[in-house]
Amino acid sequence: MTDHPSKALADFAAGLRFEDIPQPVLRRAEDLFLDWFGSALAGKGARPVEAIARYAARMGPAAGPSEVLISRGASTPMFAAMVNAAASHFAEQDDVHNGSVFHPAAVIFPPVLAVAQSIGASGRDLLTASVAGYEVGIRIGEFLGRSHYRIFHTTATVGTVAAAAAVGRLLGLSPKQMLDAFGSAGTQAAGLWEFLRDAADSKQLHTAKAASDGMMAAYLAQDGFTGAQRILEGLQGMAAGMSTDADPAKLTDRLGSRWALAETSFKFHASCRHTHPAADALLEIVTDRGLAPEDIASVTARVHQGAIDVLGPVVNPQTVHQGKFSMGTVLGLIAAFRNAGLTEFEEHYNSPRIAAFREKVTMVLDPEVDGAYPARWIGKVSVTTTDGRTFEARVDEPKGDPGNTLSRPELEDKALRLAKFGNAASEAEMRSAIAAIWSLADMARVDRLLPAAV
Amino acid sequence: MTDHPSKALADFAAGLRFEDIPQPVLRRAEDLFLDWFGSALAGKGARPVEAIARYAARMGPAAGPSEVLISRGASTPMFAAMVNAAASHFAEQDDVHNGSVFHPAAVIFPPVLAVAQSIGASGRDLLTASVAGYEVGIRIGEFLGRSHYRIFHTTATVGTVAAAAAVGRLLGLSPKQMLDAFGSAGTQAAGLWEFLRDAADSKQLHTAKAASDGMMAAYLAQDGFTGAQRILEGLQGMAAGMSTDADPAKLTDRLGSRWALAETSFKFHASCRHTHPAADALLEIVTDRGLAPEDIASVTARVHQGAIDVLGPVVNPQTVHQGKFSMGTVLGLIAAFRNAGLTEFEEHYNSPRIAAFREKVTMVLDPEVDGAYPARWIGKVSVTTTDGRTFEARVDEPKGDPGNTLSRPELEDKALRLAKFGNAASEAEMRSAIAAIWSLADMARVDRLLPAAV
Repeated sequence: MTDHPSKALADFAAGLRFEDIPQPVLRRAEDLFLDWFGSALAGKGARPVEAIARYAARMGPAAGPSEVLISRGASTPMFAAMVNAAASHFAEQDDVHNGSVFHPAAVIFPPVLAVAQSIGASGRDLLTASVAGYEVGIRIGEFLGRSHYRIFHTTATVGTVAAAAAVGRLLGLSPKQMLDAFGSAGTQAAGLWEFLRDAADSKQLHTAKAASDGMMAAYLAQDGFTGAQRILEGLQGMAAGMSTDADPAKLTDRLGSRWALAETSFKFHASCRHTHPAADALLEIVTDRGLAPEDIASVTARVHQGAIDVLGPVVNPQTVHQGKFSMGTVLGLIAAFRNAGLTEFEEHYNSPRIAAFREKVTMVLDPEVDGAYPARWIGKVSVTTTDGRTFEARVDEPKGDPGNTLSRPELEDKALRLAKFGNAASEAEMRSAIAAIWSLADMARVDRLLPAAV
Repeated sequence: MTDHPSKALADFAAGLRFEDIPQPVLRRAEDLFLDWFGSALAGKGARPVEAIARYAARMGPAAGPSEVLISRGASTPMFAAMVNAAASHFAEQDDVHNGSVFHPAAVIFPPVLAVAQSIGASGRDLLTASVAGYEVGIRIGEFLGRSHYRIFHTTATVGTVAAAAAVGRLLGLSPKQMLDAFGSAGTQAAGLWEFLRDAADSKQLHTAKAASDGMMAAYLAQDGFTGAQRILEGLQGMAAGMSTDADPAKLTDRLGSRWALAETSFKFHASCRHTHPAADALLEIVTDRGLAPEDIASVTARVHQGAIDVLGPVVNPQTVHQGKFSMGTVLGLIAAFRNAGLTEFEEHYNSPRIAAFREKVTMVLDPEVDGAYPARWIGKVSVTTTDGRTFEARVDEPKGDPGNTLSRPELEDKALRLAKFGNAASEAEMRSAIAAIWSLADMARVDRLLPAAV
């Protein structure tokens, strides 16, 4: 147990070599990259995403080495990362690490891709940097704990430091510079859940800013700009300001032997991850029993406290995005369509049939589910039918979790659907990008993944 | 008492008219603008400031409508504001509002000037927007209270919302858009004191980011990007996450009749404001009694808790900047030179004579001083001489406070010294800029204040 965990973590990130990373972890990193790429494309055309893209176009250069996925344009790394990250989390289809309640891809891959394209890095460098970002970010999320997540959007706060770690590795920062980058990133870390109550657009701002702020921290460190040496655990650092249950031991948990990246889950449903365990459990009941929404009188979802904190305020969703944070809406779509995908949300999130079902759904705190969380996300659902029958189902590992993961064909299919949803790339363009992603480890120099606009 | 203070404050900021602002408040705004202008120029050449300027040059356009003071270049408003704000706080000579422990100028004037130059605003618009930023920021600082300042750098956190309010007013946001801008700014609000322990460079990053992030929030709101409606007082808002003693009544304290801008103090000594009351009190003793540092055996500074929190960790300053946060260093310079100005710090902050004096200085918590703070910053100092005499002095209003303020000639003199310190403008250039600033209220269109580099 070190007395300077920020330094131990920075040393690890700065020293990580491609050769140190097990092959299955590298393959999973490629999987996560493709999953991110599709998610970012799905954000094209979304109002908040396009607003951030317009701000970037107003303030930043219209040309540069780094591609902007949703416009097929280019800019400096800062603005490419900002816009690509803004797009990444909109469809709520990007990855999540359960234990840290952190969405790493949205804040790590955008700055890594943008900087790699800017400096002519290899695919191996890109993968190594990405793994560094995941390992750092996930551990910081676990360190800050549940009290942090009650108020702060971990993907925004922790994401800033994760982005700095990833970009810092790509820039080849020394251990000292990496620790400085952590300091500059951690002191920029921000993001409050308050927006969710109003279905406001902040989530896109959070990922955009985490990506670009973390990048700034890394570039500044490369240029000799210093940061706090104990930004994570110090007396006036992140945990002191934004957590009441921080555990410093989490920061250095099995560095180099535990690969947290490989614990990261893919999303199967197009909604907040907190709804997925219950959605999977309800899917089992309605499929096995052949139930339609109208057959069901009431549903009780037995959940962890975090689900109540995040989903509880959303009682009457007025936007598609808010609907993805409404347990009743998600379960209604499952009951009606056996699927809560992007299209179902777009077309039905507030239809009379789904709105009626929503009223039948109750969340209750379940001690077992809560005790297992966040290491395991258990789903328990009870259904009472209109004719008086009751059914229960339980899911111990929701679809997309490491033990119930998506295959490469499933990932390709998901990415194709996401790109199509965003009207962001043709199937041929996607097939070409997918081939490039599967061969990242052999790529001498990371170029554009999609053709530039002509 | 409103139940939606964020909205009341946003309504005020959006609705503020030039005609509503009393003349003395406008004149004080001009005073503060000049005081800021000199402070920003004094930051030229400082390593952390130039690092941020290099990052801006790498990522942003090298041309645009908004002037970059330290380079005489130009860029888009975002980068001009970022670099000018980075420069503003380095010399620690910019203004402070006692009650909120907030340095408004550094985060308000840079984005206001940059946006005004970009949109061709008038001097009246610039002044009105600046007043809006001061009134909003100061009240939010008071709202978040002392618990916030213990961990968070208020100028960074609150500064983000203040910058959004000021730019939002300049852009003519509607009340609804202004509230959205508050939401987007508040959810970006960040800045931890941890860096101070290591004398790291974060303070320049904090002001740079508050200015540019707040600006981004305002532009996004103009474009329809929504934010949390209760980012200040909501259950998962700024106070919930970053304060334990927040008082919502402070947010709307006498809006439109109390002008908090006019309560803002100018800095006289080139050090952290927490050292000023004691410095003024010691100056009285050493001047009256003709004491040199070597005549003094011990000094006790009776201070408020905030001074101990911020200055206490700095026991052995290793940089000029850290010296400005060392009570012993500041009092040593006063004893040796009757002055703790930029030059004294640069040349003597760690000389043997000052380092020896530093060991003689003790801070102790004083109930009266602490009880009056932050509304009043009382200075109480006891001196024991080497020949056994004891002297006490007390200052109820340090030099630069509203009741003991700087005259326009004193402000001009200070600005000239700051520009000269930064080697940033000739006296003739400064005289011209000063004349422009004194006539802001009659300026039809805000142009460059300093000639562009040729």
